[in-house]
Amino acid sequence: MKRVVIVGAGFAGLSAMEALQGHGYSVTVIDRHNFATFQPLLYQVATAGLNPGDVAFPVRTLLRRRQNVKFRQGILEKIDTDTQRVILADGVSLPYDYLILAVGATTNYFGVPGAAEYCRAIYTLDEAIEVRNRVFEMFEWVAAHGLKDYNLTTVVVGGGATGVEMAGALAELKSRALTTDYPTIDPDAARVVLIEAQDRLLGAFSPSLSRYALRELKSRGVEVRLDTAVKSVTETGVELGNGEFIESNLIVWGAGVGVSEEVRSLGLPHLRSGRIEVEPDLRVKGFANIFAAGDVAGTMGTGDKPIPQLAQPAIQTGQHAAKMIKAIEADEETAPFRYKDKGTMATIGRRAAVAELGAGIKLTGSSAWFAWLALHVMTLLGVRNRLSVLLNWSWHYVSWGRGPRVILGG
Amino acid sequence: MKRVVIVGAGFAGLSAMEALQGHGYSVTVIDRHNFATFQPLLYQVATAGLNPGDVAFPVRTLLRRRQNVKFRQGILEKIDTDTQRVILADGVSLPYDYLILAVGATTNYFGVPGAAEYCRAIYTLDEAIEVRNRVFEMFEWVAAHGLKDYNLTTVVVGGGATGVEMAGALAELKSRALTTDYPTIDPDAARVVLIEAQDRLLGAFSPSLSRYALRELKSRGVEVRLDTAVKSVTETGVELGNGEFIESNLIVWGAGVGVSEEVRSLGLPHLRSGRIEVEPDLRVKGFANIFAAGDVAGTMGTGDKPIPQLAQPAIQTGQHAAKMIKAIEADEETAPFRYKDKGTMATIGRRAAVAELGAGIKLTGSSAWFAWLALHVMTLLGVRNRLSVLLNWSWHYVSWGRGPRVILGG
Repeated sequence: MKRVVIVGAGFAGLSAMEALQGHGYSVTVIDRHNFATFQPLLYQVATAGLNPGDVAFPVRTLLRRRQNVKFRQGILEKIDTDTQRVILADGVSLPYDYLILAVGATTNYFGVPGAAEYCRAIYTLDEAIEVRNRVFEMFEWVAAHGLKDYNLTTVVVGGGATGVEMAGALAELKSRALTTDYPTIDPDAARVVLIEAQDRLLGAFSPSLSRYALRELKSRGVEVRLDTAVKSVTETGVELGNGEFIESNLIVWGAGVGVSEEVRSLGLPHLRSGRIEVEPDLRVKGFANIFAAGDVAGTMGTGDKPIPQLAQPAIQTGQHAAKMIKAIEADEETAPFRYKDKGTMATIGRRAAVAELGAGIKLTGSSAWFAWLALHVMTLLGVRNRLSVLLNWSWHYVSWGRGPRVILGG
Repeated sequence: MKRVVIVGAGFAGLSAMEALQGHGYSVTVIDRHNFATFQPLLYQVATAGLNPGDVAFPVRTLLRRRQNVKFRQGILEKIDTDTQRVILADGVSLPYDYLILAVGATTNYFGVPGAAEYCRAIYTLDEAIEVRNRVFEMFEWVAAHGLKDYNLTTVVVGGGATGVEMAGALAELKSRALTTDYPTIDPDAARVVLIEAQDRLLGAFSPSLSRYALRELKSRGVEVRLDTAVKSVTETGVELGNGEFIESNLIVWGAGVGVSEEVRSLGLPHLRSGRIEVEPDLRVKGFANIFAAGDVAGTMGTGDKPIPQLAQPAIQTGQHAAKMIKAIEADEETAPFRYKDKGTMATIGRRAAVAELGAGIKLTGSSAWFAWLALHVMTLLGVRNRLSVLLNWSWHYVSWGRGPRVILGG
């Protein structure tokens, strides 16, 4: 039985596993965590709309009833392509006949001075919990000490889907939770500033949807700064390209994803973005039995532009890598990966979202929001979590309860 | 309007708040966390039956629609009885006309050498999450490296309700989750040892219920050691009174609760146990306007025995303290506190529990288990959490899914 090692239990890794299991392979899934994270909803954890447990799924539970699939918690340190073994950080090595790298991406600070030190990301579950803690620590501080020597401004860097969703959720948190739970805090003091370097939000969407998002965010009290670069970040705030300084104690970086140092040091060919260079069939350039899938792969779409780092492309590349392994084993030709764009969505707030479904179909407002809600709840990975998320959301919708507002740890 | 400061947002503090609000007092609730914890179910968080969010309730949400009630996150450092102010760790002081101390208890290691360093408690939410992380880190370690140089034995110290519930839940986790999610681990290797110094479990219950608990735990594979003292705890295990050493990488201390150093240094009179000495009306001995309630109060029951440190007594003492403040304000006599024993329950596992409801009524088995389930779900503090817990439990019951098995942090 050929051994397939999949590194990364995200959308790409798990869909590769799903496509390979039951087809006569011995599959080992490796991840640094014992759970998979539903990343598209981490901003909801960061803004207390969902509990951490709602978006975390134990990998071993996901692998149950799969044939010849094992899980191994561990961190990939090296690939020995001569002996065909992956070496993990704890020193143990595992043999492979085929290797699928689906380790995902990390936050990319694009070398902005101070950004890595003083910004917070929402790319992992721990990061999202930290942002939630920070938000409510700020509120508690001001409730206890008053606003005189404190600044409640939150800055969100990046006007893509992550930044827009985060800014929208923060604006709702402020307008609803603040007034009910912190009556002594002036909601106007809790500014939310969204900074985007381009001249419109949601650059990946049509201009009409960008305009809708801008209008909706503004009506929710978000200060949107377009055409605005971030020059540097310090402990006390953000310096803009025009020299202006915005004081802030919470700066959320949603401006882009990159590739970790660990991946860069694996000795594989890279694009300038750091993403691993792959052949059209998703094999890593120069390696006959190593594939890359998901965010880490520099997969090209149409017109020599890399495909977006989102859940759908990750799922499709994971499935394609699995299919190619089966093709090679059957002595068939491999085929180039073709991305089927099933549409993208972003939510701005309660009953406000944008969706671009291809074939010119664009949705905004309630219809887009319900489509977004349905899509996310349906694609959540476990039945229990699906019900729990639905419950959290329904409750939230009915009551504006914002249940999970607890400051954990320390 | 007279100012009442309540320190501690547990069962005692919150029920005092509830009894005072709307009666013309300005009430301030202080707690070190911004959430209240449903402590009776922390062992469920520790064994992955519930998510942390299911047993944590944001205090500000609990205080909504209460009249003249404020929340202040902070840690009590000093009481200045001359100026009638509490001084918090961040230097801010708050004035009071009446003070209710309901800060709860901490784990009591009774001076056993090494216990404080090497045992884990499940008295706070963070501690319960750490135990959960530890359990699954151990499982992952053995799944990755094998058992040769690892020991999966868990030792639970203390055969009271906490220890019995923890040992029972660990045994179920082992017999169910281990076989489905960790097929390579021999379930027999994951020993659960429960150590009790007395000659029976559940010393606060009738002997027939103790025998039932012993039988049920044994049938679930728990090794119960009665009449066994813990001499010392080291990094690698537990030394017993008879010199025997049990190797273990996870030792959970459930042997008793005590009073923190912070409380001992407040300058109030203490019993030998550390609990604050109170008059029969719950006023702290020697102070006309300071009350103690809940676990921290050395409240005497019948026969000069202190009342148990459980939810029911905490609720009743909190209510009594509030009532006494109203009496003093109305120039009435204060009355001694009388504990109404509404019964105690402890669960051993699925469909196995014990309940002693007073008037000689004792329940065991399914009926006790369902009574326990109903009581806990009904007394959980928020509607959303109530539904979420019910959902978690129902799901757990139907599927043995053990959803929240994620290792957070680090």
